[in-house]
Amino acid sequence: MSDRISNETELIAAYLAPLAAAYPGAFGLKDDAALISLDPGFDLVVSTDPVIAGVHFFGDDDPRDIAWKALAVNASDLAAKGAQPVAYTMALALPDAPLKGWMAAFSAGLAEAQAAFGFHLIGGDTDRTPGPLSISVTAFGRVPKGRFVRRQGARVGDHVFVSGTLGDASLGLRLRRAGDAFGAGFSHAHAQHLLGRYLRPQPRQVLATVLHTYASAALDVSDGLLKDAARLAAGGNAGLRIAVADLPLSAAARAVIERQRDALASVVSGGDDYEILFAVPANSAAEVVGVCAGIGLRITWLGELAAGSGVSLIGADGGPHHVSGAGYDHFEGN
Amino acid sequence: MSDRISNETELIAAYLAPLAAAYPGAFGLKDDAALISLDPGFDLVVSTDPVIAGVHFFGDDDPRDIAWKALAVNASDLAAKGAQPVAYTMALALPDAPLKGWMAAFSAGLAEAQAAFGFHLIGGDTDRTPGPLSISVTAFGRVPKGRFVRRQGARVGDHVFVSGTLGDASLGLRLRRAGDAFGAGFSHAHAQHLLGRYLRPQPRQVLATVLHTYASAALDVSDGLLKDAARLAAGGNAGLRIAVADLPLSAAARAVIERQRDALASVVSGGDDYEILFAVPANSAAEVVGVCAGIGLRITWLGELAAGSGVSLIGADGGPHHVSGAGYDHFEGN
Repeated sequence: MSDRISNETELIAAYLAPLAAAYPGAFGLKDDAALISLDPGFDLVVSTDPVIAGVHFFGDDDPRDIAWKALAVNASDLAAKGAQPVAYTMALALPDAPLKGWMAAFSAGLAEAQAAFGFHLIGGDTDRTPGPLSISVTAFGRVPKGRFVRRQGARVGDHVFVSGTLGDASLGLRLRRAGDAFGAGFSHAHAQHLLGRYLRPQPRQVLATVLHTYASAALDVSDGLLKDAARLAAGGNAGLRIAVADLPLSAAARAVIERQRDALASVVSGGDDYEILFAVPANSAAEVVGVCAGIGLRITWLGELAAGSGVSLIGADGGPHHVSGAGYDHFEGN
Repeated sequence: MSDRISNETELIAAYLAPLAAAYPGAFGLKDDAALISLDPGFDLVVSTDPVIAGVHFFGDDDPRDIAWKALAVNASDLAAKGAQPVAYTMALALPDAPLKGWMAAFSAGLAEAQAAFGFHLIGGDTDRTPGPLSISVTAFGRVPKGRFVRRQGARVGDHVFVSGTLGDASLGLRLRRAGDAFGAGFSHAHAQHLLGRYLRPQPRQVLATVLHTYASAALDVSDGLLKDAARLAAGGNAGLRIAVADLPLSAAARAVIERQRDALASVVSGGDDYEILFAVPANSAAEVVGVCAGIGLRITWLGELAAGSGVSLIGADGGPHHVSGAGYDHFEGN
């Protein structure tokens, strides 16, 4: 008996079909297409965010983590648009016939993630590829009609907030590359926190309703705060000044910066935060703060959109604070 | 000035955004997600069928043909389900920063195909990959509520038809690999026909309405007639006998078989036909033949689903006709 899965039918029936069992329109993954029937009163939101070994994750990462990330990055996009997950399709390109153990762990990771996020697998495709492992998820969410939260909806005067803490994932990536990246004696607990934030992004789904109720614009922070804040500001034909002192940092990120002052550049320019950056009209800002406190979600005020353009960081002295790097671009390199 | 596209923003703005201009929910590809608002009375049909260089096409194929195929294979899936195209997302994984000329031709091919099929690009993602060029299209179509045509809906007694002609694309692939595959003196016109059928599949969209009006089950023939007919038959807990004499062949395919009798195996087991195989209740068969004649679409009667299982080919002597190969499986090899 081989430890490898030798045909596509077995791969689908044994490992993927169980992930589709609860969604009637998936037809048990036995059809060439899936059916989504949405209640009237909702629009469908579509996100396509693939992950590729060697680009978005390491080929030898735990398959459970790879699966989690493939879904989490898409759940994050949906949440930023004010949408709740419905279903996803997955095009899986495998460099080799997969080992049964790998595939069992990968599908267990998908099962865990889809239960956590509220997704069902409804279709897709599996192929052998001469390239690296690639997982292209297209995710579907639903948002009340007319309530999709655009990237380009903010206005001068709107208040800008971000959820959670920034930079943990990009610092976690540095640890994933080199366990001693932050020197001898760096706290094990801090290292675990940062690695966990890199390997297991937590999409801020709890924000979806807040966003489609209050936000004028939103996007998730996947390419670094500076780059994504510039997108939010540009979408409102506005500029934004962010005080370094206002950046929400975890204790672990603070500990890194204490050791390496230039780590602040990773915090504001590294990717993979999967926090949500959003704007709300000034007269809703206090209410949003209250609602988020009520649901136990940390959000941080970053500033007000002002006439002008671009995003600048302001140091303790009130002057510009320069950091190297300007966010992640797959064509320019990191 | 470089001939290469050096950043993702330029790639999207110059080459992809024009493909999204006519669809409001695409937000000019400036958002992280797209919005599909479907009229009540319709369900959404989703197909995910990626193509990878070295697997589904050759890396040095004309970029217009690559783009056409990436959309055509998905339009074919939608048509087989009785759906009309609405929109698509595309995850594009590029091995290098693309040459401007390549990208211009590729996007021109997308423009041509989406106009032909009735699609709009509404979102997606571009990445650099250490692997080969990969194009993951997820396509969205609409079908009147309750009229999705399943793969698993046929019954014993239903009549089985297939559109167009079979085997041309798999013979075209052999020519694409070796121009002299069918020997000296093989007709240039026939060769062009076969190559064209491989490089430019023509999804049978005109059948969509016929299918959701009459068909009990349907799928497109992408993995070879024998394999896909076995799926249709199994979906109806039935078997099917197909007379070799009934197989619809182009003049070019007949010319190949005259030279190479074993080419019949390619015709029934090769993939990439993108014709539609469908079943209709016996009392609708004559009407379907009439409707298809009226719209100028060739369909061919292949047989009646009978009690039993499996698909067999029947020779001129009324006995079983054996061919090698059993359809394409990405894990078993071709």
